[in-house]
Amino acid sequence: MRDETDFGLDPRLAGDTHAIGDLELSRLLLMDDARFPWLILVPRRVGLRDLIDLDGRDQQRLLAEIDRCARALRVLETPDKLNIAMLGNVVAQLHVHVIARHASDAAWPRPVWGFGEREPYARDALATRLAGLRHALEICGA
Amino acid sequence: MRDETDFGLDPRLAGDTHAIGDLELSRLLLMDDARFPWLILVPRRVGLRDLIDLDGRDQQRLLAEIDRCARALRVLETPDKLNIAMLGNVVAQLHVHVIARHASDAAWPRPVWGFGEREPYARDALATRLAGLRHALEICGA
Repeated sequence: MRDETDFGLDPRLAGDTHAIGDLELSRLLLMDDARFPWLILVPRRVGLRDLIDLDGRDQQRLLAEIDRCARALRVLETPDKLNIAMLGNVVAQLHVHVIARHASDAAWPRPVWGFGEREPYARDALATRLAGLRHALEICGA
Repeated sequence: MRDETDFGLDPRLAGDTHAIGDLELSRLLLMDDARFPWLILVPRRVGLRDLIDLDGRDQQRLLAEIDRCARALRVLETPDKLNIAMLGNVVAQLHVHVIARHASDAAWPRPVWGFGEREPYARDALATRLAGLRHALEICGA
């Protein structure tokens, strides 16, 4: 059963991100922070809070989408580490962070959440980033 | 193929935790920090760093084990939120945190990593915690 009718993206998530597109289960967002290559997946289901609120089939779908996003970031960014996390202490709506980390990045080795101030993308950098991500996701979609 | 022969738990993970037992894929650990109900899953495979280093079948196994641990913590702790994360910026060996968070806990709403000082369990509290977890994991294993 797909109940996307009442799916509404949390306003805080919407305000901090740019939409990349919709995968089978999740809306895929780019965190508007040029310091880190940072994707967010939001399953388009109503009233979810935790991973275990998804049924088994949707959990499998989400895993496949996390895997795809992580492979795309590895292709694009050759990161030292991929951070994958479902926290949601501030924004309760179930969402998954997939972040390419480098030992040279601003927050390393600390987690990115709450680290310093977000640095929104400049217009050209955003267009380049979105195009690169869409291409890598296409390649990694098979 | 199971190549557990050379599986070695990172010494830092070993030093900060108590072993609960082995699931099909992962060694299950309890973080020795009485402030938070905090499990860590470590897939018993050699040389893993990121989720996408696991093949598809092991990713599915890991998802099932995360789900089981999260359900056990929900039964035991009725948390406000479950935090599930693969970070590994400090300890590179692939491991998954599954943490029951409460709005009343010391770090809320911040992430737990790097927050204050770890508070090791007293001996009786540890025995109680381990027994409760093993029982809840049994119930949630079906």
